[in-house]
Amino acid sequence: MAKVAILMGSKSDFPVVRPAAEALKKFGVETEVRVISAHRTPDEAHAFAENAEKNGVEVIVCAAGKAAHLGGVIAAYTTLPVIGLPVKTDMMGGLDSLLSIVQMPSGIPVATVGVNGGENAGLLALEILGVKYPDIARKLKEFKASMANKINADDKALQEELKNL
Amino acid sequence: MAKVAILMGSKSDFPVVRPAAEALKKFGVETEVRVISAHRTPDEAHAFAENAEKNGVEVIVCAAGKAAHLGGVIAAYTTLPVIGLPVKTDMMGGLDSLLSIVQMPSGIPVATVGVNGGENAGLLALEILGVKYPDIARKLKEFKASMANKINADDKALQEELKNL
Amino acid sequence: MAKVAILMGSKSDFPVVRPAAEALKKFGVETEVRVISAHRTPDEAHAFAENAEKNGVEVIVCAAGKAAHLGGVIAAYTTLPVIGLPVKTDMMGGLDSLLSIVQMPSGIPVATVGVNGGENAGLLALEILGVKYPDIARKLKEFKASMANKINADDKALQEELKNL
Amino acid sequence: MAKVAILMGSKSDFPVVRPAAEALKKFGVETEVRVISAHRTPDEAHAFAENAEKNGVEVIVCAAGKAAHLGGVIAAYTTLPVIGLPVKTDMMGGLDSLLSIVQMPSGIPVATVGVNGGENAGLLALEILGVKYPDIARKLKEFKASMANKINADDKALQEELKNL
Amino acid sequence: MAKVAILMGSKSDFPVVRPAAEALKKFGVETEVRVISAHRTPDEAHAFAENAEKNGVEVIVCAAGKAAHLGGVIAAYTTLPVIGLPVKTDMMGGLDSLLSIVQMPSGIPVATVGVNGGENAGLLALEILGVKYPDIARKLKEFKASMANKINADDKALQEELKNL
Amino acid sequence: MAKVAILMGSKSDFPVVRPAAEALKKFGVETEVRVISAHRTPDEAHAFAENAEKNGVEVIVCAAGKAAHLGGVIAAYTTLPVIGLPVKTDMMGGLDSLLSIVQMPSGIPVATVGVNGGENAGLLALEILGVKYPDIARKLKEFKASMANKINADDKALQEELKNL
Amino acid sequence: MAKVAILMGSKSDFPVVRPAAEALKKFGVETEVRVISAHRTPDEAHAFAENAEKNGVEVIVCAAGKAAHLGGVIAAYTTLPVIGLPVKTDMMGGLDSLLSIVQMPSGIPVATVGVNGGENAGLLALEILGVKYPDIARKLKEFKASMANKINADDKALQEELKNL
Amino acid sequence: MAKVAILMGSKSDFPVVRPAAEALKKFGVETEVRVISAHRTPDEAHAFAENAEKNGVEVIVCAAGKAAHLGGVIAAYTTLPVIGLPVKTDMMGGLDSLLSIVQMPSGIPVATVGVNGGENAGLLALEILGVKYPDIARKLKEFKASMANKINADDKALQEELKNL
Repeated sequence: MAKVAILMGSKSDFPVVRPAAEALKKFGVETEVRVISAHRTPDEAHAFAENAEKNGVEVIVCAAGKAAHLGGVIAAYTTLPVIGLPVKTDMMGGLDSLLSIVQMPSGIPVATVGVNGGENAGLLALEILGVKYPDIARKLKEFKASMANKINADDKALQEELKNL
Repeated sequence: MAKVAILMGSKSDFPVVRPAAEALKKFGVETEVRVISAHRTPDEAHAFAENAEKNGVEVIVCAAGKAAHLGGVIAAYTTLPVIGLPVKTDMMGGLDSLLSIVQMPSGIPVATVGVNGGENAGLLALEILGVKYPDIARKLKEFKASMANKINADDKALQEELKNL
Repeated sequence: MAKVAILMGSKSDFPVVRPAAEALKKFGVETEVRVISAHRTPDEAHAFAENAEKNGVEVIVCAAGKAAHLGGVIAAYTTLPVIGLPVKTDMMGGLDSLLSIVQMPSGIPVATVGVNGGENAGLLALEILGVKYPDIARKLKEFKASMANKINADDKALQEELKNL
Repeated sequence: MAKVAILMGSKSDFPVVRPAAEALKKFGVETEVRVISAHRTPDEAHAFAENAEKNGVEVIVCAAGKAAHLGGVIAAYTTLPVIGLPVKTDMMGGLDSLLSIVQMPSGIPVATVGVNGGENAGLLALEILGVKYPDIARKLKEFKASMANKINADDKALQEELKNL
Repeated sequence: MAKVAILMGSKSDFPVVRPAAEALKKFGVETEVRVISAHRTPDEAHAFAENAEKNGVEVIVCAAGKAAHLGGVIAAYTTLPVIGLPVKTDMMGGLDSLLSIVQMPSGIPVATVGVNGGENAGLLALEILGVKYPDIARKLKEFKASMANKINADDKALQEELKNL
Repeated sequence: MAKVAILMGSKSDFPVVRPAAEALKKFGVETEVRVISAHRTPDEAHAFAENAEKNGVEVIVCAAGKAAHLGGVIAAYTTLPVIGLPVKTDMMGGLDSLLSIVQMPSGIPVATVGVNGGENAGLLALEILGVKYPDIARKLKEFKASMANKINADDKALQEELKNL
Repeated sequence: MAKVAILMGSKSDFPVVRPAAEALKKFGVETEVRVISAHRTPDEAHAFAENAEKNGVEVIVCAAGKAAHLGGVIAAYTTLPVIGLPVKTDMMGGLDSLLSIVQMPSGIPVATVGVNGGENAGLLALEILGVKYPDIARKLKEFKASMANKINADDKALQEELKNL
Repeated sequence: MAKVAILMGSKSDFPVVRPAAEALKKFGVETEVRVISAHRTPDEAHAFAENAEKNGVEVIVCAAGKAAHLGGVIAAYTTLPVIGLPVKTDMMGGLDSLLSIVQMPSGIPVATVGVNGGENAGLLALEILGVKYPDIARKLKEFKASMANKINADDKALQEELKNL
C-alpha cells in the first residue's frame, strides 16, 4: 500500500495541509502527518528524512511559511520526491514562503505547488504514486472527470440563476 | 524502460531545458524532447497530453516563459505528473513565468521548480521515477553523494587558495 | 445584433464578471455567460472557442484568477478579440492573475483590463463592437458624457459638504 | 480601408512600436504613426484623440514607459478602442509602465498587452478590426495557421539537432 | 494670502485628502478642494490646470489611485509645483498608484509623497509656500517643535505604562 | 538670487545628480553640490540641514540609494522643502531607494521624484522657486514650450523616416 | 548586568516590540524601552546613540515602519550592534520597512530580523550578549531545548487529534 | 583571540563573502572560511554548527543565494549569533535570497544584512565581538572616523571637480 508523509513546520499550519491529507485518504493512501520543524527540531527532521524510504514513505509533502526551509532540509537527506507547500503570510501574500521553497539551488529540487495549495499538494503526491500504482492512476482519471462534471453543473446552475436576474 | 517527455513552448527555450534532458540521459532514461506551444499549436499540445500515457511517457516536463500556460494546458489533459519549468524573462527575473505556472487552481497541480531550473526539473523527474524504479532511486543516491564530494572538494580547494591570499 | 461571450473559470468569479454583463445589457448587447475552465473542462473551452465565431459571438471576455490561463487557452482557438479580466487573489492583490493574462507570448494577444475590472471589460467589449456598430459607438459617447456629469455633480456635492465641515 | 493610429510618448519608443506597425502593414491596414506625449504635448494628444474618429481612425495603439499616461489620456477623449503597450524600463522590467496602463479606473478601459509586446499590440488591433472587416478576419486565420506551421517546423528541426547532440 | 488647490480623481478619495486640507487650514492657507478626474472630466482638468496660476493657486495637490494619472495630466498644463498623493489600493498596497505618479518622464516632475500620505501632502505644500511666505515658515518650525513634544510626551507616558506591566 | 543645495550620499551618485545641477544652472540658480552621508557623516548632515536656511538655501535635493535615509535625515532638521532623488540599484531597479525615501511617516514629507530622475529633481526645485521668483516661473514656461517643440520636431522627423522604411 | 535598549519610532509600535522586551526580561537582561523618532526627535536619537555605550547599553533594538530610518540613524552614531525590527505596513506587508532597514550602505550594518519579528529581535540581542555572558548562552540552550519540546508536544497532540478526525 | 566563521553555500559565492573576511582580518580577528552547503553537505553543516562554539567560534556568517537556507540550518544547531548574507540573484535582484534569510520564524533569528553586503556582514560580526572585546570596539570607532574622513575628502574633491565643469 502506498504511503505519503505530510510534514508541517508548525501545528498552526494544519488547516493548510488538511486538504492534502484528505485527498490522499479519499484515494486510500496511507498518510503520516507530522509536526516537524526544520529550525526547532532539526534532529527530528534529519532522522525522519533519512529513514523515510525504509519506513515505506514514497512521497513527502512539506508545508511551511515565511523563510520556509522545511522542504529543502528534508530534501537534503532523501532522494524521495519532496513536495513543497508554501503557507500564506502577510509578506506579499506568501511570496516569501513561495520563493524560499521553489528557488532551490541546482541538485536538490522541491516540487512546489501554489501558496496554500493543500489539495494540489495531495493531488500531486497522488499523480507521482500513480506512475507506480495503476489503481491510483485510474482513480485520478475518475477524479478528473468528476471535476469536469462539477464545472458543467456549475455552468448549468448559473444559466438558471441568470434567467432570474 | 522509463520515459520522460520534455516540452518547450518555443525552440528558443532549448538552452533552459537542455540540462533536464542531459540529467535524464545520464540516468539512462529515454526522453522525448518537443517544441509544442500551448497557444500556437494547441491541438498538438492536446493530442500529446492525451496520448502521453499510452505512449509510455511517465512524467512530463513543461518549460515556458512569460504567461507560461504550457504546464497547465498539458495537465488539463493528463493525470501524469507535470513538472513546470519557468523560463527567465525581463519581468522581475521571471516572476511572471513562475506565478503563471505555480499558482494553479485547485485540482490541477503542476510541480514547479525554480526559474531556469533545468537540472532540477530533470532531477525531480528522476525522483518521481525512482518511486517506481529502484535502479533510478539507487543512482540518485550516488548522485547525491557525488554532489557532497564536489562541495567538499571545493571547500578543500578554497582552503588552499586562502593560504595564498 | 451584437453578441459577447463572458467566460469565467469558476462560478465563484461571477461577482467579478457581473458588472461586465450588466454594462453589455445596458447597451442592448446579447451576452452568453458561461462557467468554463481551461483546466477542468478543457474540451468545453476548446469547443467554445472554435465555434464562437460561427455562433455569432464577436468578442469574448475571460475572467480567471491565480495561474489564469483561460484567456490564453481561448485565444489559442479563435481570432476573435479576447479580453482578459484578472480576478483579485491573495498573492499581491492579484499580480499572479494579471501577469498570467497580460504577458502573453508574441502572436496570441489577450486584451487585458485591470484586476477585478469587470465594468471595464464590458466597456472595452462595447468599444470594440462600436467600431462596427454605429449605434453602440453613439451610446458610448452618451455614457462618457454621463460619467463626466457624475463627476461634476460629485464635485458640486463636495463643495456643499465642505461648507459644513 | 481600415486605419489604425500608433502613438508613442517618445521617439525613442519606436523600436517597441515598430512590430505593431509592421504587423498592420502586412495585413494591408493603413497606419498613422505619431510621436505625441501626454505630458509634453498634451494639446496635440487632446486634439488627436478628439478628431481620431472623424479622421477615419478605428483603433489607437499607445506606447509609453514609466508613469505611462498616454493611453489613459487618449482614452479620456475618445470612445474608440485604445490599446496600451507598456515599454520596458529598469523598474522591475517595466512593472511601472504596465500598472500605469492596465489599472485604469472604472469607465475608461485601456486594452493592455504585455511589456514590449509590439507585435501583439498590432495583432490585437487586427482582431478588433476583424470583427468588422471579414477580410482581416480571414487573414488572421491564415496567420494563425502559419504560426502553427512555424512551431511544427521548429519541432522537426529540433529533432534533427537532437540526433547530433 | 497663499492658496493651494487639492484635487481628487474620485469623491471617494476625500478621506485620504482630508488631512491635507486640514493641515493647510490650520496654517491659515486658503484651499480649493475639487473632484476632477483626468479620465472622466479631462476638459475640467485641462481648464483647471491652465488657469490655476492666474486664479491665484500656488501649489496643486493631486490625489488618485490605481493608474493614477491626475498629477501628470495637471502637470502637463502648468508649471506650478504639483504634489502627487497616491491612494492605497488592493494592488500591493497601492504600488500601482505610487509608480503611476512618481515615475514621471523627464521634464514633468510630480512631487510624490507616500501612499495615503494626506497630511504629508499638506505639509509639503506648506514647506513650498514657506519659501515665499516667512509666516508659514515660522509656523512650520512651531509645528516641528510640537511634533517633538508629542513624541517626548509619548515616551514619558510609555515609561509610566512600563512600570505597571 | 535663489539658491538650491544638492546633496548626495556618495560621490559615486554624482552622475545621477548632475542633470539636476545642470537644470538649475541653466535657469541661473546658484547651487551648492555636496557629498554628505546620513550614516557616515551624520554630524555634517545635521549641521548642514540646521544652517541651510540661514545660509540662504531655499530648496534641498537629496540623492541616495538602497536604504536611502539622506532625505529623511535632512528633513528632520529643517522645514525647507526637501526633494528626494532615489538612485537606481540592483534591488528591483531601485525599489529599495524609492520606498526608503517616499514612504516617510506623517509629519516629515520628502518630495520624491522617480528613480534616477535627476533632471526632474532640478525642475521640481525650479517649480518650487517659481512660486516666489516670477522670473523662474517665466523661464519654466519657456522650457515647457521648448519641450513641446522638441516632441513636435521628433514627430516630423519620424514621418520622414517612415517614408523611407 | 547586561543591558539592551529598545527604541521605537512611534508609541503605536509598542505591540511589535513588546515580545522583544519580554524575551529579554525572561533572561534577566535589563531593558530601556523608549519612544524616539529619527525624524521627529532627531536630537534625542543622536544623544541616545552617542551616549548609549557609556550608559551601559550593549545592544540596541530599533523598531520602525514605512521609510524606517531609525536603525540607520542610531547606527550612524554608535558602534554598538544595532538590530533593526521592521514593522508591518500596508505596503506589500512591510516590504518598505524591511528594505529601508536591511539595505544599509557599506560601512554601517543594521542586523535585520523579519517583519514584526519582535521575539526574534529580543533573541538575537540575547545571542549577541551570549558571546560575552556565559550565563545567557547557557539559558539560550535551555530555551532552544524547550522550543524543541514544544514542537514535539505539538506533534504528539496532533497525532491524538488525527485519530478523532 | 576572537574567531568568526564564514560559510558559503557554494564556492562561487566567494567574491561576495571576501569583503567580510577582509574586514575581519584588518581587525585582527581569526576567520575560518568554508564551503558548506545546507542541501548538498547537510551533515557537514550540522557538525560544523554543533561544534562551532567548542571550537572557539563566536559569530557565524552564512552567505547563500536563491532559496538560501544555510543561515537557518546553521542557526537550528547553535545559539551563537548567525549573520545571514543574501547573495544577489536574477530573481528581483536577490529578493528570493533576502526573504529566505530574513523572514525566519519566531525562535531562531538570523541577523540579516543587505544583498551582497559582504563588508557589512564582516562589520556586524565585529560589532558583536566589540561587545566583549574592548579592543575591537575601539578599532570600530577608528574605522567609523576614517569613513567620515573619506566622505569629507570626497566632498572636497568634488568641489574641485565642480570648478572645472
